Amino acid sequence: MEILGGPVFGVAGAGESHGPGIVTIVFGCPAGVTIERTRIQSYLDRRRPGSSKLGTPRRETDRVVLLSGLFQADLPQLLEGPRVGIGDENVPSYESGQSSGEPIAALALSKSPKSDHYLQFAGNTGDVRPGHTDLVKHFQSQGFVDYRGGGRSSYRSTISDVIGGSVARIFLEQYFQTQFLSSVVQVGNLRTGISLSSQLEQMKPQPPAPAEMAAEWTSRMDSNPIPTLDADFAEAAAELIRRVRRDGDSIGAQLEVVAIAPPALAGAPLYESLKLRLMGSLGGLHAVQACEIGAGREVVPRKGSMNNDPIRRDGYQSNSHGGLIGGITTGSPIVWRVSFKPTSSISKTQESVRKNLEEIDFELKKGRHDPCVGIRAGITLESRMAIEIANAVLSHQATRIHPSDFALFRE
Amino acid sequence: MEILGGPVFGVAGAGESHGPGIVTIVFGCPAGVTIERTRIQSYLDRRRPGSSKLGTPRRETDRVVLLSGLFQADLPQLLEGPRVGIGDENVPSYESGQSSGEPIAALALSKSPKSDHYLQFAGNTGDVRPGHTDLVKHFQSQGFVDYRGGGRSSYRSTISDVIGGSVARIFLEQYFQTQFLSSVVQVGNLRTGISLSSQLEQMKPQPPAPAEMAAEWTSRMDSNPIPTLDADFAEAAAELIRRVRRDGDSIGAQLEVVAIAPPALAGAPLYESLKLRLMGSLGGLHAVQACEIGAGREVVPRKGSMNNDPIRRDGYQSNSHGGLIGGITTGSPIVWRVSFKPTSSISKTQESVRKNLEEIDFELKKGRHDPCVGIRAGITLESRMAIEIANAVLSHQATRIHPSDFALFRE
Amino acid sequence: MEILGGPVFGVAGAGESHGPGIVTIVFGCPAGVTIERTRIQSYLDRRRPGSSKLGTPRRETDRVVLLSGLFQADLPQLLEGPRVGIGDENVPSYESGQSSGEPIAALALSKSPKSDHYLQFAGNTGDVRPGHTDLVKHFQSQGFVDYRGGGRSSYRSTISDVIGGSVARIFLEQYFQTQFLSSVVQVGNLRTGISLSSQLEQMKPQPPAPAEMAAEWTSRMDSNPIPTLDADFAEAAAELIRRVRRDGDSIGAQLEVVAIAPPALAGAPLYESLKLRLMGSLGGLHAVQACEIGAGREVVPRKGSMNNDPIRRDGYQSNSHGGLIGGITTGSPIVWRVSFKPTSSISKTQESVRKNLEEIDFELKKGRHDPCVGIRAGITLESRMAIEIANAVLSHQATRIHPSDFALFRE
Amino acid sequence: MEILGGPVFGVAGAGESHGPGIVTIVFGCPAGVTIERTRIQSYLDRRRPGSSKLGTPRRETDRVVLLSGLFQADLPQLLEGPRVGIGDENVPSYESGQSSGEPIAALALSKSPKSDHYLQFAGNTGDVRPGHTDLVKHFQSQGFVDYRGGGRSSYRSTISDVIGGSVARIFLEQYFQTQFLSSVVQVGNLRTGISLSSQLEQMKPQPPAPAEMAAEWTSRMDSNPIPTLDADFAEAAAELIRRVRRDGDSIGAQLEVVAIAPPALAGAPLYESLKLRLMGSLGGLHAVQACEIGAGREVVPRKGSMNNDPIRRDGYQSNSHGGLIGGITTGSPIVWRVSFKPTSSISKTQESVRKNLEEIDFELKKGRHDPCVGIRAGITLESRMAIEIANAVLSHQATRIHPSDFALFRE
Repeated sequence: MEILGGPVFGVAGAGESHGPGIVTIVFGCPAGVTIERTRIQSYLDRRRPGSSKLGTPRRETDRVVLLSGLFQADLPQLLEGPRVGIGDENVPSYESGQSSGEPIAALALSKSPKSDHYLQFAGNTGDVRPGHTDLVKHFQSQGFVDYRGGGRSSYRSTISDVIGGSVARIFLEQYFQTQFLSSVVQVGNLRTGISLSSQLEQMKPQPPAPAEMAAEWTSRMDSNPIPTLDADFAEAAAELIRRVRRDGDSIGAQLEVVAIAPPALAGAPLYESLKLRLMGSLGGLHAVQACEIGAGREVVPRKGSMNNDPIRRDGYQSNSHGGLIGGITTGSPIVWRVSFKPTSSISKTQESVRKNLEEIDFELKKGRHDPCVGIRAGITLESRMAIEIANAVLSHQATRIHPSDFALFRE
Repeated sequence: MEILGGPVFGVAGAGESHGPGIVTIVFGCPAGVTIERTRIQSYLDRRRPGSSKLGTPRRETDRVVLLSGLFQADLPQLLEGPRVGIGDENVPSYESGQSSGEPIAALALSKSPKSDHYLQFAGNTGDVRPGHTDLVKHFQSQGFVDYRGGGRSSYRSTISDVIGGSVARIFLEQYFQTQFLSSVVQVGNLRTGISLSSQLEQMKPQPPAPAEMAAEWTSRMDSNPIPTLDADFAEAAAELIRRVRRDGDSIGAQLEVVAIAPPALAGAPLYESLKLRLMGSLGGLHAVQACEIGAGREVVPRKGSMNNDPIRRDGYQSNSHGGLIGGITTGSPIVWRVSFKPTSSISKTQESVRKNLEEIDFELKKGRHDPCVGIRAGITLESRMAIEIANAVLSHQATRIHPSDFALFRE
Repeated sequence: MEILGGPVFGVAGAGESHGPGIVTIVFGCPAGVTIERTRIQSYLDRRRPGSSKLGTPRRETDRVVLLSGLFQADLPQLLEGPRVGIGDENVPSYESGQSSGEPIAALALSKSPKSDHYLQFAGNTGDVRPGHTDLVKHFQSQGFVDYRGGGRSSYRSTISDVIGGSVARIFLEQYFQTQFLSSVVQVGNLRTGISLSSQLEQMKPQPPAPAEMAAEWTSRMDSNPIPTLDADFAEAAAELIRRVRRDGDSIGAQLEVVAIAPPALAGAPLYESLKLRLMGSLGGLHAVQACEIGAGREVVPRKGSMNNDPIRRDGYQSNSHGGLIGGITTGSPIVWRVSFKPTSSISKTQESVRKNLEEIDFELKKGRHDPCVGIRAGITLESRMAIEIANAVLSHQATRIHPSDFALFRE
Repeated sequence: MEILGGPVFGVAGAGESHGPGIVTIVFGCPAGVTIERTRIQSYLDRRRPGSSKLGTPRRETDRVVLLSGLFQADLPQLLEGPRVGIGDENVPSYESGQSSGEPIAALALSKSPKSDHYLQFAGNTGDVRPGHTDLVKHFQSQGFVDYRGGGRSSYRSTISDVIGGSVARIFLEQYFQTQFLSSVVQVGNLRTGISLSSQLEQMKPQPPAPAEMAAEWTSRMDSNPIPTLDADFAEAAAELIRRVRRDGDSIGAQLEVVAIAPPALAGAPLYESLKLRLMGSLGGLHAVQACEIGAGREVVPRKGSMNNDPIRRDGYQSNSHGGLIGGITTGSPIVWRVSFKPTSSISKTQESVRKNLEEIDFELKKGRHDPCVGIRAGITLESRMAIEIANAVLSHQATRIHPSDFALFRE
């Protein structure tokens, strides 16, 4: 079953790239968390194609509606969401309220599907796009596959990730002030030394409040052509992406994603370790080929005496460990780095086959694509991180029994 | 997480009684199963309130739309479903196609919510309805609860069960000709001896084709005022229900639910046994207080020599076991009996409390309810049975490896 | 996967009837619960074959050893358990300590396997025992089955249930004083009116402490030839069982199982409802064909006005609901009734087949069996109930966040 | 719950570093796979501490016994395993047989626990080892923790991984000839260009049989002081490790792990993608800080036109994708790279705290440790990879229904 996170806090998703819409159900949000549709929408807007000149020209509004799991006594306020309709009947959806602890369902329509772009891939003699799932999914499903835009394997499915992650981060912020951020640190061969984690190191020992830091850095990143803290790097990377696009080609990227002020003591050793879960969730995202925590691959040449983070009474003095030791949060910022391959869809001719394995020189006829998928992926990474941390937090709470939480009648 | 069935074939649901709609995601349907929206709609129509004069006067059309998981090359046919809209944008939904193996999402709106009926239950001084979940959910959620019609605890949530069950039974019919049926066998003190299982016994050794039997019995049951094979019992029971309603009271009922021509060898011993799963799924339904397989509680007074079903080369010669031995299907019809309590919502005055535990004489001010919840539950029981059997079938198939199902390139 | 309970508190088991031993892993016990091996052993002793003259003559000591998940600073005390060996190496096992929150593993050997008794069932021409899993498991596994005593489908596998249940009930007692009890209420046609639930009703409004009640009733039941509160019924039932055994036959039984002083507010609506879970767990046990909560099947003839339990500020005034409303605990005693079929293994000749489906007159050559499996099942039912309640308790706690439980360094 | 893999093929584990033993239950092995204890033992021997002069001097035999899930008609052969005892009772364990489809349980004792080495870490004033889980686990469990060797967080727990992986690879070999191998490719700053994946590229288009290749490479690696194909690199790396150990320090390492001849079409898109699962399982292992598939982090500077692997009718012509596209196996070798931090336990003085957060200069008093944990981790990585692939294979098979696998009686 397609569940992200879980078993306590988890997200179920459905919906193909060019289907009617993406459906999401978020499980496990505790009762009493204040959820506003507009806040979820603002995270989705960061994910949306068409939000950047460097991305795909596909245009979607990705307007989200909330269909369950919220309540407030003021019904008119609760029901101020966009109307949702089937045929000529329609009803108001939820605009804002408190979570009731029951599943939160959401819907976003896909209004711009240019499906004729995909006729090239239809049927048993359809072309196979190199780097895409066309071939394996065709054989796996014995041909019963939605070939338009990769069906469910499309990046469009990450709408569910972002909706679930929105709920998770609102929950974590309400209880722990935790903030989630991401920035691009490499595009092609261009690298920046100004990462979120390096900035966090500089702010010790008296960092500003997490929400303040997050707001400032977000605004700084928003002012750059790609979401990164380093303006010069941003310009150069944007120029590289434009050049690659003109060439009909694509390019890889690396992002850093961090959680500031995470709750300590969440996670578990071994198979349910939060490291394992995040490695899977972040590293398992579309187009990702490498995933690193803390100092990542740089730990290999190190000696233990350099790599072990010193501990003082106010916490870890460095963060080679990336906020998790033995799969459990230490309270230090949670820091990951994720490497994306260059977008598979390019305009250049490539060696490929038809689905019947007949060999062809493949040329993409039409279609709208990002030349650098990585640069739009930050919000999805933040979302997946928030989902896993929320699940780990609830799982840890399950082990700390407060009998007063089980009282009903007067004795 | 609210998953019915699973982990291979499962159904996720969301949506409260008086919220905007019920959202459903069906996981695990193998690729290539022919799914038509109208067929799912026909099962939902059996579940719908307002479909019987003996049921609740609440009127819902429960029109379902399919939003993912289907495909066919003929796009116009695929997209013939009702249009789904958010605000002033709308898109066509899926009407029919083959399953792609990806999750199938569905939406049904709730267009007739008379929420003012529920003001009696609002807030900390709201009334608690005896027999309902009002009190425990209020305390469990610390007051952050949708008190309208029980929120998610409403019977309305079983729309997801029926949608999931529809997909499951279509899958099982396509591969094994399996049919699912249910009939009322007791209302109050009135019992009938004409049950589906007794009729099945009489049809041996040369029963008609499963689909034929199912069609005939369904038509017979549809012609009666309550869904049962015995016309005299149906009349008497309907009269009893009408009388009970006039008295502002309610009454219990017992149903039998069967699977005809189930595949053999599905299920497992012990904790994943299909008996355990069905006992939970059928016996766990709203208002159910007893659940029995095969001869059920009647086995207690029996001796083993009477109770063991003789075996011949063509199968079991009787069905005290109810189609499952050791949690595994034998190929005999799967037979269960489920007992429903009388509807909790009645018009008579009862001792209760407010949510602050202040004692009151409770009187239901408004609301629309079934006097006998059991008689509308058959389709839900069939659906839950189909879901669990589908999951057991896929789970058994997982253990029988056919290497040719893993071939891709030519060698 | 064979997991009982879960996903928060769960039990994994392995081991066949005549294999070397039964292995158990208990997941999810919170840290800090005091676990003594002897207490777990005392529960296992109630399950053990050979503990009653009315049961199977198979003799097992079922000595359990604990291999993980406990600790105490006093290592010699921790390590006072029986020595565990492989070949000529051996190590001390755990005798008592506090749970560490890590999985608790246990082993019990099977030292009395008379496997030659089972040659009758070996291979493709082996006999099929009516009422047993022989046939379906043979075909399901394509003949790769341990035919000795049903392999894993044996009642012997419930050792894992009891070990897991022991940990669960110790946890629940430590935090909530909850007690678990069961008694036989019917054997064949003999019924008693003196059940645990009826006694509980009489003790209101000032019941003794749960542990006191449990101790007294247990001692009363232990003094009878079968575990039940009614001495006359016990004698008559024991005589019936002896007579049935002399005839080479077997007989059914019904048990009641209760949780006294359960925590309120544990459980959830719908698919994760505690009613669904208990219906599955109790009703899914070997040889069970009916499972009922509270008033059970007796609710069918009732009217709602009789069946709804009145509520006062000190709680529910009756217990038709059986301690769960909408799948959530109300704090009232949790009351279930479970009906067992007569033991399938009898000495009389029966119609059956060989595994190749050749028809035979089946006669059991050897073997050791209970004439009435139900009467030994109480401890297993209590255990399964405790496991599910523990899981529901931890799951509810997960939704009530206490930020102080996530603090590590000084700020 | 501590389950590796799943939900179809999964492994449950229990047991602390210095507890009596490690207990493992393997779920989901299809019936009919030939399992020999000695083969599982041979994989465990590769994992065993004390097997290399460069590793920890801790000596364990790690003799494994199999306690369930196997059978063969020749009982004496089945029962030829080492005797397992509790106190003075003992029984034979399983030596070899066919899997029955039921859970396979295994036990390995821990006979060499020098627990006095760990008194330094006991109680609230115990020292906290930098880089270890001591601090978070102490606070997470409120002090109820087994501080000896990290309790369950020890690398010793990977015995369960290897046992589960052994069953998985035997299954995969029996059906698909799949082989699993790993080799060290970097220690500190020393790198080799001779990796398994580079050798595989050279062998196209006519590679030898998978078992043959695996045997040859294994023997080549076994002849080197560390498990790698490049003899010169092995010597230099071994010398570096010895030097680091003499300095009381430790060093990081990187390994490559591959599956040769994997079945195609296993896996799924998105949340159940095999990429997500392997990223988590391999990257989640103790001490790992980076995890990469195929070309890994090297894809970032690439353009799409270089990175997309050309497809011809006989398969993918290069393997930048690492054997998985869209989370589904392509039939190309599955190739991962995993980076291990330097061992946390070193002899040098470090800044740390006691568990009460009092600051100290930490010095490790005693203990036995690897200076380079990575070099012993290959077998664990292979095992985890095999477990996830086995689960993906069974999951894919679940979607391909063969009605003949559900036939029982003659019609």
